[in-house]
Amino acid sequence: MSNNPQQKTPDRIPTRGENFSEWYIETIRKADMADYTVVKGCMVIKPYGYGLWENIQAGLDKRIKATGHENAYFPLLVPESLLLKEAEHVEGFAPECAWVTHGGGSPLEERLAIRPTSEAIICSIYANWVRSYRDLPILINQWANVMRWEKRTRLFLRTSEFLWQEGHTVHRTHEEAREEVLRMLEVYREFLENELAIPAVPGRKSDAEKFAGASETYTVEALMQDGWALQAGTSHDLGQHFAKGFGIKFLDEDNTEKYAWQTSWGVSTRLIGGTIMTHGDDKGLRLPPRVAPVQVVVIPIFKAGLEGALKEKLGQIAKDLRAQDVRVREDFRDNQRPGFKFTEWELKGVPVRIEMGPRDMENNTVAIVRRDTGAKEIVPVDAIVETVKRLLVEIQAAMLAAAKAFRDENTRRPANYEEFKTLLDEKRGFLLCPWDGTAESENAIKNETKATLRCIPFDGGEAQPGDVDIYTGRPAVARALFARNY
Amino acid sequence: MSNNPQQKTPDRIPTRGENFSEWYIETIRKADMADYTVVKGCMVIKPYGYGLWENIQAGLDKRIKATGHENAYFPLLVPESLLLKEAEHVEGFAPECAWVTHGGGSPLEERLAIRPTSEAIICSIYANWVRSYRDLPILINQWANVMRWEKRTRLFLRTSEFLWQEGHTVHRTHEEAREEVLRMLEVYREFLENELAIPAVPGRKSDAEKFAGASETYTVEALMQDGWALQAGTSHDLGQHFAKGFGIKFLDEDNTEKYAWQTSWGVSTRLIGGTIMTHGDDKGLRLPPRVAPVQVVVIPIFKAGLEGALKEKLGQIAKDLRAQDVRVREDFRDNQRPGFKFTEWELKGVPVRIEMGPRDMENNTVAIVRRDTGAKEIVPVDAIVETVKRLLVEIQAAMLAAAKAFRDENTRRPANYEEFKTLLDEKRGFLLCPWDGTAESENAIKNETKATLRCIPFDGGEAQPGDVDIYTGRPAVARALFARNY
Repeated sequence: MSNNPQQKTPDRIPTRGENFSEWYIETIRKADMADYTVVKGCMVIKPYGYGLWENIQAGLDKRIKATGHENAYFPLLVPESLLLKEAEHVEGFAPECAWVTHGGGSPLEERLAIRPTSEAIICSIYANWVRSYRDLPILINQWANVMRWEKRTRLFLRTSEFLWQEGHTVHRTHEEAREEVLRMLEVYREFLENELAIPAVPGRKSDAEKFAGASETYTVEALMQDGWALQAGTSHDLGQHFAKGFGIKFLDEDNTEKYAWQTSWGVSTRLIGGTIMTHGDDKGLRLPPRVAPVQVVVIPIFKAGLEGALKEKLGQIAKDLRAQDVRVREDFRDNQRPGFKFTEWELKGVPVRIEMGPRDMENNTVAIVRRDTGAKEIVPVDAIVETVKRLLVEIQAAMLAAAKAFRDENTRRPANYEEFKTLLDEKRGFLLCPWDGTAESENAIKNETKATLRCIPFDGGEAQPGDVDIYTGRPAVARALFARNY
Repeated sequence: MSNNPQQKTPDRIPTRGENFSEWYIETIRKADMADYTVVKGCMVIKPYGYGLWENIQAGLDKRIKATGHENAYFPLLVPESLLLKEAEHVEGFAPECAWVTHGGGSPLEERLAIRPTSEAIICSIYANWVRSYRDLPILINQWANVMRWEKRTRLFLRTSEFLWQEGHTVHRTHEEAREEVLRMLEVYREFLENELAIPAVPGRKSDAEKFAGASETYTVEALMQDGWALQAGTSHDLGQHFAKGFGIKFLDEDNTEKYAWQTSWGVSTRLIGGTIMTHGDDKGLRLPPRVAPVQVVVIPIFKAGLEGALKEKLGQIAKDLRAQDVRVREDFRDNQRPGFKFTEWELKGVPVRIEMGPRDMENNTVAIVRRDTGAKEIVPVDAIVETVKRLLVEIQAAMLAAAKAFRDENTRRPANYEEFKTLLDEKRGFLLCPWDGTAESENAIKNETKATLRCIPFDGGEAQPGDVDIYTGRPAVARALFARNY
């Protein structure tokens, strides 16, 4: 927050239409969510951004535990020899690793990667834990930092270090593992919809887009306001790939030794970027009430001599709201004008603003302003708590409805490849097209248009009679969602 | 947990008297709290240990926020050039650093340390945030992993990677910074006492023992059951050392530019080790109810034909307790005998056990057993919730009282250096002695006896008339607490 008293309004941010990418970065920086640091590719998540992450963590952690998982913590460093145990995995991740080569003043015998993801280190440990079918399932989640060396970075979306949760489970049968994979994907979908007001599309990844080392990858794909897709969370059926690489075997009830079946699933601080790009407008952030670090900001319109009385009155209102678990901030700064504060808290995306000036005090009312619509109502002091609670629910619902409408309007079904290219250039968005199931078609489309196969959606992903691949013209096996993506 | 049905009782752990150090490690491993991994010096914190850490985090995070701090997240990696900016700091930490030298397939221009602590990286960022006195104070905390390369490791007490929180604050005046340092030390002391039932002694460190780069270090020192001290938390007055090294300056209200004053303070997963060594007995862990991951375990004593009825009845009891926010675990395994389960949950330190067998069912009663004393009472089903809630409070208080009595019995005042050495060898514990304030005396005692100066306690640390240094015989400036320490 700026404390420069010379400044009449906060620095202007570019509009989304002028430059979506600059709008995104400047909104984050001006809203005090995060910034770049001297460490290449690594960001600092400032308290306002971290507060959002804490609310995301709390909402998701509750769901992860409600589905029977426990949290644990595994080592940050992964010896190179462990990464090498699963061939596709090392091929996918080794180029992105940061390597520790010296410790305690001496060179190390073996170099250690900072975890880019934890399958390798966790599987090396699970191999010691699993002996009998009675040791299964293992249902563990970890909240952690991970590191993937990135050349081109963007705050929250692509940074060398980021924060995430990664679930790692072990099962007796493939069927049970597959149930887990889909259960956690649904947890993500529901969480995104009900907490972040992001209506993501659940579906299955193509072989080309799946996780390095997985049998199948499932995803929830969100559509940003610039028409680009964002992979918001993934859930992997690891099959027995890692179990075989790491020797995770158990004696089953029938007294035969079997390899276990595994899953992993994760979402990251990238969700913060997704929330910003789904809901923000040209004034800045618009945060969904359920996860907003500040749900209500209380601002006095000072008049000489009335400062004390206004602060007291608004302080009591804030207290009453807090007693109902509403997250309130009082902005009683005396070196900024109300208009400056309004603009600043709009930039920071606080869902509800309460204003009180001398006339309001006389009438025992306040003005309540919605961030999402800008609508203002005058409310008697007695009705504030009830009004705010209602508004927080309404705003959350309205934001989801708007995001759903945007997604639906921007999901198109091109009739042929020419239309596909035109729509992609002119409208962007999701393009649902028949696909022949080959990497040949998928790669050609990617190379020619930069659109990638985001997923074969659970809903609408089945090929219909007569469907032919949008690129090759060969018979289609599915309908796939294509888009340019972050 | 063992699921081997051939096993009549869980593996025996050594007694504390036989070998305290082995008792400690074996208790942790058998109780499924943590274990070593293939990564040298790095542990895995298993769900049961991590559950304790989550409760510690929740209790402490609430207190950190209640004192006005917000959480944030700073980069994991610290460029070497930043570490070099504070001379004492780099001297203290560089030898323990793990160094990243390669990233994304290429050697790096500058090597990066995995944070051993975050003063350097955070100060480099704060330097950009602080311009005016209106930007102060900065009151930020971070929950993070850190890495200090250790040759000799011990689960939770000394591992290369550990988890902690680190507060980093910036102030306008030294007085305000000092208030912060002492405020957070008191938060730690109160937290240790009321949540972990550890009666730690607050005090000031000598120059030799203070944090590398601090003006003053304050500490809370706990006494373990083997008579060794454990530094449980520290709070540092950083003076202007880092502000000068990193250029953290502000324009004060009087229009002059000034260097800021800083503090930092932290506690770590080491607190888990302290909890184990304060309260454990020869049967294993005894966890304080307020932080125990499982507060009550419910165990049926099965009789053929009654399994279903017993499970149903105990399931209802568990549900009633959960409705009152009691953390309950049902142990309905059918491949282990009750005696095995009793021993196992005693090893895991669960404060209260509820048993129900066929006769209890007839009488509509249960047996409730306290882990701390072993006392057993027969309680009507209707009175379970009330009894359990009372017991959890009583057990917490009894554990603190016992730990306080132990600490007080084992805090001695040797009359001379000969007695000092005898007491240290025969009784260990805290030794409170007059000290002349010199490193000469402190170092001689350390070299000859391995006892270090733990702190000059706030209570009882003032020199009395006629006090002379226990080693040099010179006039004393304080009374200091010495002990051998972890």
